[in-house]
Amino acid sequence: MIKRFLAFLLILFLFTNTIYSQSNDSIIINKIFSEALADNESYENLRYLCKYIGGRICGSVQAENAVSWIESLLLNLEIDSVYLQELKVRNWVRGEKEYAYILSKIFGKQEVNVAALGGSIGTGKEGLMGKVIEVKSFEELFELGSEIVNGKIVFFNQPLNPTYLSTFRAYGEVAKFRALGAINAAKLGATGIILRSLTLSNDFYPHTGIMFYNDSVKKIPAISISTNDADLLSSLLKVEGELDFFFKTTCNEYSEKISYNVIGEIKGNEHPEKIILIGAHLDSWDIGEGANDDGVGIIQCIEVLRLFKKLNINPSNTIRFTAFMDEEVAQRGGKKYAEIVKSKGENHIAAIEVDAGGATPIGFSVNADDSVYNKIKNWSDKFLKYGLYLIVKGGGGVDISFLKELNIPLIGLITDSQRYFDYHHSANDKFENVNKREMQLGSASLAMLVYLIDKYGL
Amino acid sequence: MIKRFLAFLLILFLFTNTIYSQSNDSIIINKIFSEALADNESYENLRYLCKYIGGRICGSVQAENAVSWIESLLLNLEIDSVYLQELKVRNWVRGEKEYAYILSKIFGKQEVNVAALGGSIGTGKEGLMGKVIEVKSFEELFELGSEIVNGKIVFFNQPLNPTYLSTFRAYGEVAKFRALGAINAAKLGATGIILRSLTLSNDFYPHTGIMFYNDSVKKIPAISISTNDADLLSSLLKVEGELDFFFKTTCNEYSEKISYNVIGEIKGNEHPEKIILIGAHLDSWDIGEGANDDGVGIIQCIEVLRLFKKLNINPSNTIRFTAFMDEEVAQRGGKKYAEIVKSKGENHIAAIEVDAGGATPIGFSVNADDSVYNKIKNWSDKFLKYGLYLIVKGGGGVDISFLKELNIPLIGLITDSQRYFDYHHSANDKFENVNKREMQLGSASLAMLVYLIDKYGL
Repeated sequence: MIKRFLAFLLILFLFTNTIYSQSNDSIIINKIFSEALADNESYENLRYLCKYIGGRICGSVQAENAVSWIESLLLNLEIDSVYLQELKVRNWVRGEKEYAYILSKIFGKQEVNVAALGGSIGTGKEGLMGKVIEVKSFEELFELGSEIVNGKIVFFNQPLNPTYLSTFRAYGEVAKFRALGAINAAKLGATGIILRSLTLSNDFYPHTGIMFYNDSVKKIPAISISTNDADLLSSLLKVEGELDFFFKTTCNEYSEKISYNVIGEIKGNEHPEKIILIGAHLDSWDIGEGANDDGVGIIQCIEVLRLFKKLNINPSNTIRFTAFMDEEVAQRGGKKYAEIVKSKGENHIAAIEVDAGGATPIGFSVNADDSVYNKIKNWSDKFLKYGLYLIVKGGGGVDISFLKELNIPLIGLITDSQRYFDYHHSANDKFENVNKREMQLGSASLAMLVYLIDKYGL
Repeated sequence: MIKRFLAFLLILFLFTNTIYSQSNDSIIINKIFSEALADNESYENLRYLCKYIGGRICGSVQAENAVSWIESLLLNLEIDSVYLQELKVRNWVRGEKEYAYILSKIFGKQEVNVAALGGSIGTGKEGLMGKVIEVKSFEELFELGSEIVNGKIVFFNQPLNPTYLSTFRAYGEVAKFRALGAINAAKLGATGIILRSLTLSNDFYPHTGIMFYNDSVKKIPAISISTNDADLLSSLLKVEGELDFFFKTTCNEYSEKISYNVIGEIKGNEHPEKIILIGAHLDSWDIGEGANDDGVGIIQCIEVLRLFKKLNINPSNTIRFTAFMDEEVAQRGGKKYAEIVKSKGENHIAAIEVDAGGATPIGFSVNADDSVYNKIKNWSDKFLKYGLYLIVKGGGGVDISFLKELNIPLIGLITDSQRYFDYHHSANDKFENVNKREMQLGSASLAMLVYLIDKYGL
């Protein structure tokens, strides 16, 4: 009888303990959100990064300024440790503003909005003039064959599929034209490529992004064209049959430069050797301000550190923020980070990347085994209270992807993606297109996840 | 034995029928979303309403133009019935652009951005000059008493609480200062009121909105001031102790005018007498374009009708869209509509209002008894697939609120509210601040709900 009574007491104890622990979590998570939403400083920091430092492609003065400024921000937080990780970056430079026009037989010279793709060779001062061949797929291109393509400029004009709910899915389907378009066109003797900008928006912004060459195929210049201008070009091609197109790009790649990842840590109370990594990328494309991609991720990660300090949340494990250099060009920051983790044999509980823009957070992607996924899925009720309704398998982020082989759980913050590609890699990726409160909800969501992982493990 | 076999067959039939019905729903709902996301016309219609018709306060020429234009849009849809409901509206006119300044002892004349509140009397050409008393609540105002307040201008400077997740909740808490500020200040002898704009954004836009007088209290002029200017005024008051403030408003109320609700219907196949109402308001404040409030709601409702027509979804019940006139000033459209429903004894299955801006839809509010709420809640899985994770009790909408006494279930579309009050009732409520895809998701979500209610009832 007494045994039963003790068992009953034990159950009661465990039960109330769970209840207490849960309500304690609710209180802390609520404080995290309240503090994040009431703060103005992180938004002002994003303004500074965008307006005073600006677009910061790796290798640029702006990227170096960003490294110094982020280091000083972290030092001001009075966290336990701030340091740099040296690495080498490619040094592609856009040069003069690009110039391009359609030579229409009906309308004459029609200037259009273009931008060199990242990594492209330039046309040189004399520019490139040629007849345009429009295609919507590589299959179509190869079917045309070198007889038709040779000596021409290939125009990849496949729009993103608007019917997908996730714009990232739509982007993923056509990104190959940017990445491999120049190689495949050059194989058939093309002299250059024009890419329809990878956006769902109808506007006049050309969207840049990285493209690749292949040592066995001739390098040809590559540009993107705004969606409105792509529609114009396509219409004129239909009407006139053939058209001349001219573009001039003076971009060039110079010798590599030294740059840095910037790291800031709050050391764990109990397990300082165990690391929860939060990361975002500090570099951006040069033609915008790198606001949504990915200044906002940088600022949100720093805000997580500030929230932990301000609310006196002393983590059991080390919370490490890494501002990765060079996500956009060759991922040297992510690679260097993973290399050091391996050489030092560092222990990571999780690696979380924030690189999906500053819109309202809606969940997390979990690239890990089922037990980790299920553990995070079990926190759904806590997440749902703050609008985070989506926990999906896969994903993570580009910079942390190099940690995958170490079996570290990779997690990505998922945001409402509808507006993201309106800005992505274009001059439209500017501070004004990040909303303060949506950004703050992202910071708080990230801090909540880190808090739960730190407390309950993965 | 045969009986058992037949029972088995019956169960099998019912089971497969349910499965079939479910997957059929999925297919149709998927078509609704795909069609809505692939369409450009509804966004261009919103552009027209915002840019070519513009701000359309009831009683204005713009409001009348909007009535005619919506009527023609509905006629073009070739639906079963399009008609107007005549009503009378108040006719408050803003007059000249408002002018205001702080007279600082240190900085001299500081011009600030203000807008008369809707319904306010004007100061007349000579304007109003007076000392300013800042308060944050009615309690504080009444504590000061008439000795201090008499002859002064009362400055209501309570910001919205940023820590709430829902900005509508934050707005709801302080809207009383706009509604009743002039009455309460005038009771103590104040000569005018200045309201801190009801927004969470720090900017230079004054936000207007309706205010009230009371026949037993003197009418005094009321303006709103932008949040940045409110902060300036508050800082200067702290530094200088007392300050003069000047404002000039020439707004005035003229005799009532005739206006209209615009109605379009797709008649039900089986129960034409049973109505599923979808509504939004056609009027807006005059200083913006009425894009988020509520042009987008109007366009989304029309898109529901187009989607049903285009996808050949023949509803069992009548789908009726009502573009309500005058939500902002005196709700004459909503009142007239309810009056006619009562007098005709019309049968409404549900009344759904769309008036929460064009941001990504996240769910529905259900103002009805538990059985209706639970029925809608049971569709959660279907909703969640499209990001609609929130089904809450209460709400509905202002225009349909007059149907409450008839026990008609009232439903509101809930959107991501973070940006809404950046635009609300200000010059910033313009077309550019509605994203095409976010708007399209709202149209499709609404069409999905109407489809389910039509098929399964409430």
